[in-house]
Amino acid sequence: MTTSDNRVLIVGSVGLDAVSTPHGSVDRVLGGAASYSSVAASFFAPVSMVGVVGRDFQRENIELFESRGIDISALEVREGETFFWAGEYGEDPNQAITHATDLNVFADFRPVLPQPHREHPYVFLANIDPELQLEVLDQMESPEFVAADTMNFWITGKKDELIQVLKRVTLALMNDAEARMLTGRKLLIEAAEDVLALGPRYVAIKKGEHGALLFSRDSLFSAPSYPIRQIVDPTGAGDSFAGALVGYLASTGDAAEPNMRKAIVYGSTVASFDVEDFSLRRLAALSREQIEERYRVFQRIAEF
Amino acid sequence: MTTSDNRVLIVGSVGLDAVSTPHGSVDRVLGGAASYSSVAASFFAPVSMVGVVGRDFQRENIELFESRGIDISALEVREGETFFWAGEYGEDPNQAITHATDLNVFADFRPVLPQPHREHPYVFLANIDPELQLEVLDQMESPEFVAADTMNFWITGKKDELIQVLKRVTLALMNDAEARMLTGRKLLIEAAEDVLALGPRYVAIKKGEHGALLFSRDSLFSAPSYPIRQIVDPTGAGDSFAGALVGYLASTGDAAEPNMRKAIVYGSTVASFDVEDFSLRRLAALSREQIEERYRVFQRIAEF
Repeated sequence: MTTSDNRVLIVGSVGLDAVSTPHGSVDRVLGGAASYSSVAASFFAPVSMVGVVGRDFQRENIELFESRGIDISALEVREGETFFWAGEYGEDPNQAITHATDLNVFADFRPVLPQPHREHPYVFLANIDPELQLEVLDQMESPEFVAADTMNFWITGKKDELIQVLKRVTLALMNDAEARMLTGRKLLIEAAEDVLALGPRYVAIKKGEHGALLFSRDSLFSAPSYPIRQIVDPTGAGDSFAGALVGYLASTGDAAEPNMRKAIVYGSTVASFDVEDFSLRRLAALSREQIEERYRVFQRIAEF
Repeated sequence: MTTSDNRVLIVGSVGLDAVSTPHGSVDRVLGGAASYSSVAASFFAPVSMVGVVGRDFQRENIELFESRGIDISALEVREGETFFWAGEYGEDPNQAITHATDLNVFADFRPVLPQPHREHPYVFLANIDPELQLEVLDQMESPEFVAADTMNFWITGKKDELIQVLKRVTLALMNDAEARMLTGRKLLIEAAEDVLALGPRYVAIKKGEHGALLFSRDSLFSAPSYPIRQIVDPTGAGDSFAGALVGYLASTGDAAEPNMRKAIVYGSTVASFDVEDFSLRRLAALSREQIEERYRVFQRIAEF
């Protein structure tokens, strides 16, 4: 897993979060979609992260990335403050209430990829402005597999650009509400068909505690839901899911549908760990052995 | 499947419904939990139905039961009108708006079981007053397997009696909202543990479009959700699920956990047909071959 032919490029936000949940609250802790997804992917394949942070970004966060073997040579450090998000979760872990979003140095982030990064075969475009996602794609040299995440904000505000992104990706990731919003379809199977018609080979729809669905033109996979005992902090669950999914695919070099199913379950597995603690604490303490163990639990709970 | 040692006794409401959904509306069509569950069970094992109807109950409904080989010798016909329910579904198939509930002859229904019925080894107590469920249990002679369904109305109004029922059943059936209401637990795994602590060997939690969960003291099964293209009428989905589940168990004579998982998927399969048309129309036109075919679809969408 150290050859260059299975490297994963991840582009997205690296930030500091203030999060409050029924289980407590934390302030200025490591967050951002690229942070969660890069650490999640790093359990499976070598990762290069592209993003930007400010001078206030703590050394311990850099050390976490380094300890996971993540290439942060394209993580810019700029004058100014790091992207900051403050939010709160009530009893429903799927509903974040945003109190503040300070873009700071992220406001004029324009991803510029060093030459080695352009040759990475696996790409995860985390949830950022679809215009930036397109800029990344323009710089890549024939990647084998591209996954892109998005959110309601871009579906509302930059739908045309998002559709341009979806035309060029292998896997479109979104949650159930986003799939319905993007397509205007109530039924997920119809929403998925509409997204597939835009171009991607696969669409994965995340359903929170209810698992995930993977659609292709001629197949459907319903991944099991894992009954988590304690959702301490749901932040980053979707990003951990996506990162582990792409990392697993890269480690196997196989994006055929049967292996995509396994990737979805690895994604669900790592996401189920992520929510057990605030920020990236649980991911920082995670081992590949623990992932494999819980993957086997997913297998047991789904077999019949 | 015609021996008396796998007979299923089903006790519950047999009624006439007026239902309106985004796909249309029907009036005075066959409904009631015992109707749906008995027809669903009849694809797998011989069924005896216990209930009461009025003089207005249409001959065609009796003929449907007879065509499915259901023993209706304990389906009383009384002076008066049949239980009547009028309800409406909007875009959310999990939310019925009740416009009318006229108990009519069901108001003083007291199940009295003929001797052969008391010896049935499999029992499904559909959603009725838990006091009546207890009366049925008092009349049964050591059944092998008892499943009981319930609803929010009894959880609120007759919780003590319901708990007495749960102490005496093999399988407790409820939906996710009911499990949370009964136990005061937000997390389904904790809710399930609380229900198991009351006595049942299994608890099955129905999650509508998100599938179902089966819990025992030392196991968990997450059944796949089947992406239905068109939910014409959600009425009876839970009853069809329960009926098929108990019928399948009776047909195999095996209530061990691995076979319970299969039973849950057969339940989900038949429920997925039920919602494709109003009333019992789809179940009336269903064949065992179609059930087996869709069961294989459930297998394919869940395997990884």
